Amino acid sequence: MELFDKHQSVLTKAVEALHARQFFAAFPENPAPAIYGDSADAQGQQAFKSRLGKPFDQLLQKDAESWIGEEESPYLHEKLGITYPAYNTDSLVQRSRAAFHSWRKLDVNRRAGILLESLERLRDRFFELAYATMHTTGQGFMMAFQASGPHAADRALEAIAAGYEELRRVPQRAHWEKPMGKYVVKLDKEWRPVPKGISLVIGCSTFPTWNSVGGIYGSLITGNSVIVKPHPGAILPLAMFVSEIQRVLDEEKLDFNICQLAVDTHDAMKTRALAEHPAVKIIDYTGSPEFGSYLESLSGKTVFTEKAGVNCVILDSTDDIDKVVSNLAVSLTLYSGQMCTAPQNFLVPAGGIKTAEGMTTFDAFSTKLSEAITSLVDNPKAGPFVMGAIQNDRTFRRIGEAEQMPGKVWLRSRTVSHPMFPKARMATPVVVELDASDYNLYSREYFGPIAFIVRTRNTDESIEIAQSLAEHHGAISCGAYVTNAETKARIADEMALSATPVSFNLTGNVYMNQNAAFSDFHVSGGNPAGNASFTNPQFVLGRFNWVGHREMVPA
Amino acid sequence: MELFDKHQSVLTKAVEALHARQFFAAFPENPAPAIYGDSADAQGQQAFKSRLGKPFDQLLQKDAESWIGEEESPYLHEKLGITYPAYNTDSLVQRSRAAFHSWRKLDVNRRAGILLESLERLRDRFFELAYATMHTTGQGFMMAFQASGPHAADRALEAIAAGYEELRRVPQRAHWEKPMGKYVVKLDKEWRPVPKGISLVIGCSTFPTWNSVGGIYGSLITGNSVIVKPHPGAILPLAMFVSEIQRVLDEEKLDFNICQLAVDTHDAMKTRALAEHPAVKIIDYTGSPEFGSYLESLSGKTVFTEKAGVNCVILDSTDDIDKVVSNLAVSLTLYSGQMCTAPQNFLVPAGGIKTAEGMTTFDAFSTKLSEAITSLVDNPKAGPFVMGAIQNDRTFRRIGEAEQMPGKVWLRSRTVSHPMFPKARMATPVVVELDASDYNLYSREYFGPIAFIVRTRNTDESIEIAQSLAEHHGAISCGAYVTNAETKARIADEMALSATPVSFNLTGNVYMNQNAAFSDFHVSGGNPAGNASFTNPQFVLGRFNWVGHREMVPA
Repeated sequence: MELFDKHQSVLTKAVEALHARQFFAAFPENPAPAIYGDSADAQGQQAFKSRLGKPFDQLLQKDAESWIGEEESPYLHEKLGITYPAYNTDSLVQRSRAAFHSWRKLDVNRRAGILLESLERLRDRFFELAYATMHTTGQGFMMAFQASGPHAADRALEAIAAGYEELRRVPQRAHWEKPMGKYVVKLDKEWRPVPKGISLVIGCSTFPTWNSVGGIYGSLITGNSVIVKPHPGAILPLAMFVSEIQRVLDEEKLDFNICQLAVDTHDAMKTRALAEHPAVKIIDYTGSPEFGSYLESLSGKTVFTEKAGVNCVILDSTDDIDKVVSNLAVSLTLYSGQMCTAPQNFLVPAGGIKTAEGMTTFDAFSTKLSEAITSLVDNPKAGPFVMGAIQNDRTFRRIGEAEQMPGKVWLRSRTVSHPMFPKARMATPVVVELDASDYNLYSREYFGPIAFIVRTRNTDESIEIAQSLAEHHGAISCGAYVTNAETKARIADEMALSATPVSFNLTGNVYMNQNAAFSDFHVSGGNPAGNASFTNPQFVLGRFNWVGHREMVPA
Repeated sequence: MELFDKHQSVLTKAVEALHARQFFAAFPENPAPAIYGDSADAQGQQAFKSRLGKPFDQLLQKDAESWIGEEESPYLHEKLGITYPAYNTDSLVQRSRAAFHSWRKLDVNRRAGILLESLERLRDRFFELAYATMHTTGQGFMMAFQASGPHAADRALEAIAAGYEELRRVPQRAHWEKPMGKYVVKLDKEWRPVPKGISLVIGCSTFPTWNSVGGIYGSLITGNSVIVKPHPGAILPLAMFVSEIQRVLDEEKLDFNICQLAVDTHDAMKTRALAEHPAVKIIDYTGSPEFGSYLESLSGKTVFTEKAGVNCVILDSTDDIDKVVSNLAVSLTLYSGQMCTAPQNFLVPAGGIKTAEGMTTFDAFSTKLSEAITSLVDNPKAGPFVMGAIQNDRTFRRIGEAEQMPGKVWLRSRTVSHPMFPKARMATPVVVELDASDYNLYSREYFGPIAFIVRTRNTDESIEIAQSLAEHHGAISCGAYVTNAETKARIADEMALSATPVSFNLTGNVYMNQNAAFSDFHVSGGNPAGNASFTNPQFVLGRFNWVGHREMVPA
């Protein structure tokens, strides 16, 4: 219980924050030397560099069948050269199954202590994690630090807290007496939260840890063994999480195969074989709608997905259009639009946007947005760091497709040069005008720095479009700028019906892309963007069954 | 709020009972005149009789396209002649969709008040409900009274309580402040539990209300509109529930189509059309594994199923074999084995069962069990009332199939005559001996008064078989008789792994078939017997989405 005692207070705070949905962050997002130490950055960078071109030696997994790895830095445009131990599906599953039993039988407090300890150790490696994330995902340093480090760790803590709560919701035992008139029936009852078995967590290439640690820690706290299958393009950040979990398990004299890393390559993906294995009972997935829907259709599995969303901004009215435009320019430029929460479709009435100084016309808005983006990306102290690099060539090519669309191109994409990484794969956002009638064009997700300004008849039509897109094609976020209380209430109601959270009237340094652990649900689970929600109680409840035994008390 | 105030105390008690999992019953199961009134029985019987041969006029649904109904009494062996208003799928869905919006916008307390009021009114009709249930399902009077009336109402109350809890788990709003060093980000946040839409509840022919009211009330409390599709063989009990809900809705000036009855006939089932309608988002189902699995595979739906289970009794050791045998004889004779929780496979070691007086051999146990059954069914004051009638001819024919199996028939089924209903479709249990190697025979559910005594090598093999059956073919209950603590612990662990609750050492008047609301989960959701559990929080959480909106607080 040593580890549990050590971390109990943070767990208690996390449970409280989850209830109150107030601000809480156990891991500071500010990479300042005053917080993380003067040498943390240099040491982290050094640690990252020391892994390049070598087998990754931090995992405890043994007897690799081969060593593979083909990660490539979007900044350096070259292979990282790191290899990881690889195994076939059967041996991964066999080890996981063997490890499962010791883990499921462990007291939940001991499981919690071990998992919290692993997060605390990762805290000391947040800078290394940041560089690992930059050079796999293409994120800028600040996002890579925050998203892969403190924000991911907070989401992991949130999943631990949610699981911890659910595991204790039903009493362990109760003496049950039923009066039957002349006699009393007496039963001793007990209830067990029984983990489902092997949990497979499938990572993505853009937010390898943030999107996956909820599933990893959610499955572990509820007693399942976990196989982590990272995207072949972003292994290192997840490998670091797995290695820290394995080390704590090992120190606690437990089988480190309770959490295994399962790497593969683009040409020989192991995902289907793992997902379809009968012993795999739980699957977490972030990625394409096609593959996500295939996973959801597998019978006998509990599947948690985040797929794609077509996110809209409804522009109706505002006091200050320039503040709105500045905010939106950042929203769609951040990490070059490679966020599942980034806005894609800006719905603007043909008659313009009502402002304190009269109407801002459709064209004026389009001009202002294009100018704000240009001013941001051309600012050498901000632009390249906000944009980061494009993770892969498919995203890069998609930008060209958007420019071919039959609408006015308000802003053409340019390649720009990164002051620190001259070979970085970079592209500024493209902005294309479409008409409401072009539904078939803007109704799919164009992942990347691609924005459409859609000319609608009026705000009613904007709401209709945003709702229809969410309902039929999925949405993870929505922005709305509206000063009229009645219209605002209508947007809130209609978008809630299509299970889409709305950020109203954001300006300044708060963006619709951002979801905070302990307060903002991430993905609602109620539209085609995904069936899971961080961290709805269902996200942990689906990982175990309540089983109640009972016994006659002798008269 | 009048209705809520009226019923708040019972709701509070229900929530508390659910937490503590202690005994709680809001609706007395004892049909004594002292509790339900001297004339309640006669009035209920009269009310039931008055409906025979007539259109059912208690529903508020209008403009029927036709009036249909083909229920038949298993006791009278004749049609009830009651007809119900019928509609096509589109008009049912259209009405449900229109009614949905007023209901979803209603305050949860008002919804709770209305639903609780409907249950209180049904309380006054429990005897009528009992006769309606007897003459559709074939249950004996006592079971029909308890299961369709108080026990069902308690399960409905449990679902209301669970939903009420979940709807209030997340605060309605919070002011959120994030310190950012030099400034503070301030957001007003709000969270809405958004119902999914139209909920379809598909009833079964044996426990029409008990198995369906959890879904009906669970969907209603969370704000969905509900279409209740009873089994064509058991409409009346559910029609009574729907009519009481409709009346309270109407009195409260709400659209009574918030809860509609959708009847069909065996030859023209509407279930697929309703289930596949895109507006139907939630499905509750009790019935065959084939149809249940088809429903589970529908994409874009939240599906709660109870399918079939192959329930075992593991016989290892006991202090008093005669008490065990008496208890088991009732378990498998109750309602002629037509309970999803009834035992089917009695796993007995070839070497016999250890007792205080030495070993009870396999043959001695088989003889004792057969004798106990015979003595029970031949007791004119108990037998016919415990057995009830066979709901349908398919179940009746299945008994014959069992007798053709390649094992010793320890007890042949007989037709017996009911003292009150000479034409009743009745059959006493058949008991057949099989060997552990006959897995392919005893591994499917033989719904009805059919029991197999399976000769196993030893208790280890018995556990293995019980676990394998649960894991691969589903199990809803399990009995075990065992005096050794270590063996008991092993059974508890192994069966928990296959998500099957075990009743240990039941004797006297407590049977493994019985699951009590507020304390026993019914079905675990963790094996092929079904994916849902009464009332795991997931059973209500799956009926709505949490959606959080947020707005910038101006600086």
